[in-house]
Amino acid sequence: MIAQTPKPPYYVVIFTSVRTEVDEGYAEMADYMLELAQSQDGFLGAESARNELGITVSYWKSLESIKNWKHHVEHVKAREKGRNIWYSSYKTRIARVEMDYGFEQ
Amino acid sequence: MIAQTPKPPYYVVIFTSVRTEVDEGYAEMADYMLELAQSQDGFLGAESARNELGITVSYWKSLESIKNWKHHVEHVKAREKGRNIWYSSYKTRIARVEMDYGFEQ
Repeated sequence: MIAQTPKPPYYVVIFTSVRTEVDEGYAEMADYMLELAQSQDGFLGAESARNELGITVSYWKSLESIKNWKHHVEHVKAREKGRNIWYSSYKTRIARVEMDYGFEQ
Repeated sequence: MIAQTPKPPYYVVIFTSVRTEVDEGYAEMADYMLELAQSQDGFLGAESARNELGITVSYWKSLESIKNWKHHVEHVKAREKGRNIWYSSYKTRIARVEMDYGFEQ
């Protein structure tokens, strides 16, 4: 559930979004995009949660791998559909992870 | 809902967690910690969602402001209680936001 990521530095894409009320295959597309992302070079892991706000965090080896994923033809198509029907607003932030620490019972 | 943050660079704390089944004032403490964080120097905004996994993302002006918040005495106490009763596991990642872009209908 909590992504197992390597020692920093690595990169993260933080995608926060507000959905419209239109479903039309949204969940299927979200699952498919995660599956596709997982098969990309440089993908390190992802975490996701949604209430009124949705937050998806994906971890990547490099800015290059994030750029390649951004330009993946199926991802471009999904994003266009996202803007047209699924999301009323979203924000994408790209950041470099400098440190991390955790806790496990 | 989606945090209004300034132009990058700025910093982000990504806190992902799995809860235990113990409630004991958890929601009240979460609300209070958000309120307290908002009053700290350098706080820029926060976003939060929870299903099986909880994700809280908070945005900060500098690593210094994150460090100050980390060492805030009430935050230290809350974190200790978190490890003792509320969380079965968590991970904190600190990253430097390099770029962002958004969409609004």
